[in-house]
Amino acid sequence: MEIKNVRGGYDFLPREQNVRNYINGILKEVFEEYGYNAIETPILCYYDILADKYDEDNDILNEIYKLQDQGERRLGLRYDLTVPFAKFIALNKNKVAMPFKRYEISKVFRDGPIKVGRDREFTQCDVDVVGLSGQAVEAELMTLYVSAFEKLEIDIIIKYNSRKLMTGLILESGVRSEFVPNVTTIVDKLDKISEIEFDEALLDLGLNSKQISKLKEYFKFSLDELNDKFKNTENIKIIEGLKELNDLTEYLEKLEIDKFCKFTSTLARGQNYYTGNVFEVYEANGFIGGSIGAGGRYDQMITDFINDGTIYPAVGVSFGLSSIYEILKNREIFDRESLIDIYVVPMQTEIESLKLANQLRNLGYRVEVDYSGRKVKKSFEFANKEKIPYVIVLGEDEITNREFNLKNMNSGDQTKIKLDNLKEIQNVIG
Amino acid sequence: MEIKNVRGGYDFLPREQNVRNYINGILKEVFEEYGYNAIETPILCYYDILADKYDEDNDILNEIYKLQDQGERRLGLRYDLTVPFAKFIALNKNKVAMPFKRYEISKVFRDGPIKVGRDREFTQCDVDVVGLSGQAVEAELMTLYVSAFEKLEIDIIIKYNSRKLMTGLILESGVRSEFVPNVTTIVDKLDKISEIEFDEALLDLGLNSKQISKLKEYFKFSLDELNDKFKNTENIKIIEGLKELNDLTEYLEKLEIDKFCKFTSTLARGQNYYTGNVFEVYEANGFIGGSIGAGGRYDQMITDFINDGTIYPAVGVSFGLSSIYEILKNREIFDRESLIDIYVVPMQTEIESLKLANQLRNLGYRVEVDYSGRKVKKSFEFANKEKIPYVIVLGEDEITNREFNLKNMNSGDQTKIKLDNLKEIQNVIG
Repeated sequence: MEIKNVRGGYDFLPREQNVRNYINGILKEVFEEYGYNAIETPILCYYDILADKYDEDNDILNEIYKLQDQGERRLGLRYDLTVPFAKFIALNKNKVAMPFKRYEISKVFRDGPIKVGRDREFTQCDVDVVGLSGQAVEAELMTLYVSAFEKLEIDIIIKYNSRKLMTGLILESGVRSEFVPNVTTIVDKLDKISEIEFDEALLDLGLNSKQISKLKEYFKFSLDELNDKFKNTENIKIIEGLKELNDLTEYLEKLEIDKFCKFTSTLARGQNYYTGNVFEVYEANGFIGGSIGAGGRYDQMITDFINDGTIYPAVGVSFGLSSIYEILKNREIFDRESLIDIYVVPMQTEIESLKLANQLRNLGYRVEVDYSGRKVKKSFEFANKEKIPYVIVLGEDEITNREFNLKNMNSGDQTKIKLDNLKEIQNVIG
Repeated sequence: MEIKNVRGGYDFLPREQNVRNYINGILKEVFEEYGYNAIETPILCYYDILADKYDEDNDILNEIYKLQDQGERRLGLRYDLTVPFAKFIALNKNKVAMPFKRYEISKVFRDGPIKVGRDREFTQCDVDVVGLSGQAVEAELMTLYVSAFEKLEIDIIIKYNSRKLMTGLILESGVRSEFVPNVTTIVDKLDKISEIEFDEALLDLGLNSKQISKLKEYFKFSLDELNDKFKNTENIKIIEGLKELNDLTEYLEKLEIDKFCKFTSTLARGQNYYTGNVFEVYEANGFIGGSIGAGGRYDQMITDFINDGTIYPAVGVSFGLSSIYEILKNREIFDRESLIDIYVVPMQTEIESLKLANQLRNLGYRVEVDYSGRKVKKSFEFANKEKIPYVIVLGEDEITNREFNLKNMNSGDQTKIKLDNLKEIQNVIG
């Protein structure tokens, strides 16, 4: 039997996992500073509950892993963290205080084609608020993006738009409402395809040249130009969309994060459940081509799911953990497999070495003892390979003299430390 | 359609998740102090690889969730973290330095009957070393148990034994080797069942009264008595088992953790893959009846799995996260749903409130802004319900005067703080 992993799922080695834990640690810290609560939801769900949330002609239904338990219940592995969040609210709406702010960082599963950036088993990171309308919370989430990426030392640009404005502009171009979803998808690509390709795609849909040239005109306007052009419009979608965008833009300016944000009228986001503003985050330097975060307002989804007569407005953002990992992985601070500070090599002094290690751990250091019994030279080779910064060789002489050498593996310097005054080590390592 | 969770899987609310994150945080810190590396392995595995590791007549095969992907590959959800660890070593043995120390805290799945302490989807926490023989590493793992539970402020007793000694004593009683596994299971229950039940179980197996009385005699001896009784034995299992136990006991005494440890000759642990010493951790006060941690040496399992001619000795321990949660959950420090330090209530000052919140976050506080627009009285009720310790109401007067009141929700005290000198707040909150 060949031992292998299922494609699209990965073992993460310590060096990789250290980077991932570093990213998650920073994100959790920022989320909690902003008052978001940690929750956890199950991976195994009833298939019918998962499937009910996606369109029937959608690939998502095929991509949900399906299974039966011993009791022949039809189950599925969760496809994202949004449906589990809606289920969480449905089941716990009387146990949590509204508005409710949560984050979840956990695995999701997709039985789809494997491409760069598309795995079968991967970790999602979602931050959402349910129970609040208005632009203040959107502005808070964009501030949260800025805070989090500042801590990760990644320069970003947040593109933002309103799905209402987008719909309004498409209708204003004379497109019939049943074509809006398809035209939205094509407009979203306007920056990525040539003008000829754009025209062809719209002609294929049955649009005429007048409609197409209107679309091209409207989707080149800046926010100021749109405000000016449509100041007397009666198109309700445009009125509402511009109002939301102007409110949000004012927040961004006053919060002094407008320099990180860019109104982008062609931005749609894939999911049809978005009802208001949408966002996408890009690395400013373009090292990573795709987005490294995205989100938006979806006021209808949880409302429909719970269906108890209450409106559950919701807005959320996600962080693309694997893209962030790609940006960070080559930084020098991660250039070590091991996180060990001090490596203790016993020479027939296993017990004293274990004791010393425990005392050093109590001082806050990460300490490993070499139990292998190999030659000291091999132990030093190991420490070098693992880039452990300090090594202590503890022999019987050291025990008798109550003193050992702390060797700095980078400089080669040795410092004498008294066994009975281990705190001296803090003058060397800090 | 009724919305519900699959039985044996749970939503964790913020208060519960805060306790769980606290436990995981402490454990990770201790594991890293001891030089254990974080890794992550996939949940989805090839079913044949999972199944190959368990006996065919074992319930485990039934309890592995089975599924097929769109390519009709037979997959399973991992049942524990030990087989994935063996697979990890098989696939990465040339990428990690041996001896290799790792921990993994992650979900496992079991399609079995649901009882107290037995869920279908739960988080396991395993700490293992591969590539080391000898008792020093066992002693280190027991020290790690002591350190971790001290930080969690849980008093523990670690029971320890040797599977070799146990096998040796059963053989010494005249039991034929094919009965050893069954007799081991019954001896393991000696403390939990009556003497009559014990006798009957062994008689049912076909043992005679002489064998039974020998078993009862041997399994009442202390370690000193066993050493004395068998000082001239030629039973190789007893010789090896006692040697390992004596070495380990010496370590425990010299490391001054023997007061937390108790030799228990009847301790077997369920899994048949253990080959040497085994451990079980109990809460000293007996608040939780079952074990809250367990482990042992298993020198054969990874060796057989990889089957490349190399011996891969291994030893590991696990932490029972849900039992630890049960012990900790009612502590006063977790008596809050929210982790928020300061709640900012805007009165037509959303933007200034968001700015203030960001400045307070930069000082390290966890801050939430009330965007709901509700009456101030309702905001105070919310803060009280959520036990948020400090509230700031920010109205236009406060903006004009550049000064606001920081209200302590426990004492009712108010402290005036200048908007342009927010650091003053550190004198109040710390």
